[in-house]
Amino acid sequence: MMDSPLEKARRIFHIENRTVVNCLSEFYGSLLLLFLGISIVHQFDLSHKQLNTWMQINLGWGFTIMFCVYTCSKTSGGHLNPAISLMFYTLGKLPLSHFFYYSIVQVLGAFVGTAFAYTVYLDQTHHVLGDLRIVAGPNGTAGLFTSMPAPHVSNTIAFWDQFVGTGFLALFACVITDKRLEIPFSIHPLLIGLVVAMIGMAFGMNLGYPINPARDFAPRLFAALIGYGWEVFSYHNYYFWIPIVAPFFGAIAAAWSYFIFVGFQIPDQPPSYMKENKTDGDGIPLKTTDLA
Amino acid sequence: MMDSPLEKARRIFHIENRTVVNCLSEFYGSLLLLFLGISIVHQFDLSHKQLNTWMQINLGWGFTIMFCVYTCSKTSGGHLNPAISLMFYTLGKLPLSHFFYYSIVQVLGAFVGTAFAYTVYLDQTHHVLGDLRIVAGPNGTAGLFTSMPAPHVSNTIAFWDQFVGTGFLALFACVITDKRLEIPFSIHPLLIGLVVAMIGMAFGMNLGYPINPARDFAPRLFAALIGYGWEVFSYHNYYFWIPIVAPFFGAIAAAWSYFIFVGFQIPDQPPSYMKENKTDGDGIPLKTTDLA
Amino acid sequence: MMDSPLEKARRIFHIENRTVVNCLSEFYGSLLLLFLGISIVHQFDLSHKQLNTWMQINLGWGFTIMFCVYTCSKTSGGHLNPAISLMFYTLGKLPLSHFFYYSIVQVLGAFVGTAFAYTVYLDQTHHVLGDLRIVAGPNGTAGLFTSMPAPHVSNTIAFWDQFVGTGFLALFACVITDKRLEIPFSIHPLLIGLVVAMIGMAFGMNLGYPINPARDFAPRLFAALIGYGWEVFSYHNYYFWIPIVAPFFGAIAAAWSYFIFVGFQIPDQPPSYMKENKTDGDGIPLKTTDLA
Amino acid sequence: MMDSPLEKARRIFHIENRTVVNCLSEFYGSLLLLFLGISIVHQFDLSHKQLNTWMQINLGWGFTIMFCVYTCSKTSGGHLNPAISLMFYTLGKLPLSHFFYYSIVQVLGAFVGTAFAYTVYLDQTHHVLGDLRIVAGPNGTAGLFTSMPAPHVSNTIAFWDQFVGTGFLALFACVITDKRLEIPFSIHPLLIGLVVAMIGMAFGMNLGYPINPARDFAPRLFAALIGYGWEVFSYHNYYFWIPIVAPFFGAIAAAWSYFIFVGFQIPDQPPSYMKENKTDGDGIPLKTTDLA
Repeated sequence: MMDSPLEKARRIFHIENRTVVNCLSEFYGSLLLLFLGISIVHQFDLSHKQLNTWMQINLGWGFTIMFCVYTCSKTSGGHLNPAISLMFYTLGKLPLSHFFYYSIVQVLGAFVGTAFAYTVYLDQTHHVLGDLRIVAGPNGTAGLFTSMPAPHVSNTIAFWDQFVGTGFLALFACVITDKRLEIPFSIHPLLIGLVVAMIGMAFGMNLGYPINPARDFAPRLFAALIGYGWEVFSYHNYYFWIPIVAPFFGAIAAAWSYFIFVGFQIPDQPPSYMKENKTDGDGIPLKTTDLA
Repeated sequence: MMDSPLEKARRIFHIENRTVVNCLSEFYGSLLLLFLGISIVHQFDLSHKQLNTWMQINLGWGFTIMFCVYTCSKTSGGHLNPAISLMFYTLGKLPLSHFFYYSIVQVLGAFVGTAFAYTVYLDQTHHVLGDLRIVAGPNGTAGLFTSMPAPHVSNTIAFWDQFVGTGFLALFACVITDKRLEIPFSIHPLLIGLVVAMIGMAFGMNLGYPINPARDFAPRLFAALIGYGWEVFSYHNYYFWIPIVAPFFGAIAAAWSYFIFVGFQIPDQPPSYMKENKTDGDGIPLKTTDLA
Repeated sequence: MMDSPLEKARRIFHIENRTVVNCLSEFYGSLLLLFLGISIVHQFDLSHKQLNTWMQINLGWGFTIMFCVYTCSKTSGGHLNPAISLMFYTLGKLPLSHFFYYSIVQVLGAFVGTAFAYTVYLDQTHHVLGDLRIVAGPNGTAGLFTSMPAPHVSNTIAFWDQFVGTGFLALFACVITDKRLEIPFSIHPLLIGLVVAMIGMAFGMNLGYPINPARDFAPRLFAALIGYGWEVFSYHNYYFWIPIVAPFFGAIAAAWSYFIFVGFQIPDQPPSYMKENKTDGDGIPLKTTDLA
Repeated sequence: MMDSPLEKARRIFHIENRTVVNCLSEFYGSLLLLFLGISIVHQFDLSHKQLNTWMQINLGWGFTIMFCVYTCSKTSGGHLNPAISLMFYTLGKLPLSHFFYYSIVQVLGAFVGTAFAYTVYLDQTHHVLGDLRIVAGPNGTAGLFTSMPAPHVSNTIAFWDQFVGTGFLALFACVITDKRLEIPFSIHPLLIGLVVAMIGMAFGMNLGYPINPARDFAPRLFAALIGYGWEVFSYHNYYFWIPIVAPFFGAIAAAWSYFIFVGFQIPDQPPSYMKENKTDGDGIPLKTTDLA
């Protein structure tokens, strides 16, 4: 086993600097995330919802997050989202400098991943769109890449929508990873994936739940460069900054609300009546109150 | 690590009184539950089932229950439902006083959560409904908030439907949490979520499976206040009390039926032939009979 | 805790005779199974596939099996299917006498469960069908209860279809419960549920995958009694015996094929190269060959 | 227990030669895989997407992979795909000779499994197709068995599509089985199944995601023999070789990209700050950076 190809290669490619390692990991994870996610949206839109339906958007993005988080879970933590990274900074889990590094490589990875997805659907895009690249409206197709609110959704509601959607993501990320809940590490990414699917079922109608500044901005830039032009930024009274900014506020507010209402209140040790209960014989664990 | 923001905040916000903690937790969990759940229904109805279909109602509510129960699982237990709390009282797991506390904060949380969901969909609601707030009938939209039976469903069947639906929820909650089944605590909420999805697939047609007095009453009150008026209560010969009352009876009857038919019969120790079997070499655990 | 209601009740209701306990358990589990399952089919058919679609039939039955097996997993084993019970007999896991006891109570439970489901949908059935009870054809509705093959499906293919469908159920039940695979007991029912959903996606078109003599026969008898009459038995050249008989042969053949091709070949101890591998550092467990 | 039927049969059928055992296992697993998978596609196409929709194609194939991998996980490893076997060879996990053995029995198993699926749908096929066996175009039905690209998809994109799709399968197979991620062995097949479902949601539009040389070639040969003729090979400028060849390159490239970007960078031991963190009291595991 001394000469196994993987062992040899590990010695060659192993990097000691953890900052470099974590940036590589967030870059790679974000690349995979957008490669898969943008492809899911292309299959939905380009097939006119005949192949993928909204359910595949929900479960597809959910599974995609799930496996991209698994991929990076032992290196960078698998944030893949600047709002989640900032939230971890406010919890004292990430140095501020690393929040900036992470955000940059998350956007870079998202951009490269979008480009990859675009190549897989080149022929289908040409078949359906021809040379037309209309940003929004009845024939608009920039939604293949990034969020484009309908005219009847105001930017105020758009901000609130992204605040709320990213908030739920951050909140349940704190729940799932809360050590006091004792959920095994190996199913954290699985549960995070289901959270994303759920958010799509609850908050997908206004904007399509980007809930991630990197996921929204990088493909928007890509769309601008491949022919949609500046309008992807100016559309809807320069809406584009909303899914970049709102998620940060939502993630922080929701995460801290969890800790204040619930997380800080979980006892370090189960109280004695719960321990005793472990040996009684009545079938349901007591986890509710002190039977005062 | 002494000065981590979370540790500092924990010292500030930690509350010792477990009754207050549990009430906070049930309030917060019920708020999240309705915030997510009512949003799911809005996305279903306001998109005319083009985004969410019935499947998203089922899986969406299932995932929502799942993560809200995870959130509260180590504090209040995550009942989020007065009928479940009363059931636990009959099993000797919750003092009667706490059943009343829990019910009140569950309704309060559900009301606030409904209000939050309403705000996210303000623009979409205005776009689809304009200023019309018709309770029921072909153009009725109070179903965005609460259950509204079709005219051909009698209140007798409605009562039975809620008795049965809540019964299955309570029954499988007892199964999943039965210590003798040895299901790891960390997947209890996951399984409870799938139970709710299943109930929606089996008993969603008559009333839309509220199966929770707080989930049905609080949004009904909210709907009355935002313009639907008193008719949400008087509709269908004052149907509104049925999804409040029937769940209590169903939950208790079904939970006890489980214990009588199965739960009380599970041996405390696996009989000797099962232990021996653990070391035989034939591939399938014997779990059926005593081979008499 | 000495006086908890559950402990008191356990002393009253506990039954020592394991045969009685197991029969009670199989009766109760089969009752729940058909109560839920027949309700799922009613919601599918009576809503003209507007609420439930084929996906809810698949996932709904899957979840239903999942939780009914959980319910009975520590008492009778949760067979809920005479073909599975007979298969366990051929594996030496169930006495022949118990196969007969199990089959009888499974049919009884299935009958009572069907009756319960029927009551929940009484108003909806009346609304959609009026007083018409047509067995088959364009307006046939006996499919609400039991399998009714289309005229272009021969009874030979019907037999093969039930042989195959039940075979896959039995085969993967043997895989999942094979001790040598070391799958934790607490996720066995979860996986069995997904197997059933999968079978519905693969073999649902010919007959609707009854794959269980009790599940097909008991509701057929119920349908005959509530107005569909003798034709539910005579239809399609007395097809009714096929989903009763074919599952037994399929379950036994498929289960043994698994053991002969794979199960008997799993080594009792992992060979030495696999143990060594546990301490090497290359990222993927060796589980394929002896590197000869 | 000495005389249990399984123990007796084990002594008779047990084979010592691991190469034979592994080949039997891959043959059997591939047979089951195509038996189920081709049946899923038949139900989709022959019902004109009224029973199965694209979601059942995704989840159905996902569950099918899941349970077929479970079946073979303790013998041959459950590759069921020559591209995955070659990838394991490049990682030093499979001797080159075994790659060839595996590939041969995978194709044989896939062929036999296809034939079995065909028999279950004989009557339905006759009912829908009559005697017509048209390969492609508006009335083409060879897609019941194998991938048939639309005319507007070039063979270059087809190659890239299969490179990418199989790449993601291989990449996440490496992630899931990476010992350093410490995912329990017993949920590896479950996660692999979800990966396949996800790939179908992201990369199903161009070719229907065969991502497996054996899964595409064996049914293509079967289709040629039952009446579709040589055109299944010559169609689309001899496209047939693409889903045979491209997966090998994609699987190797993607697997190694994972190890270089992430896998080789996972520390053998968690660094000290992570261990310390295990005993702090702040609710979220530190898994991101060294807090430099």
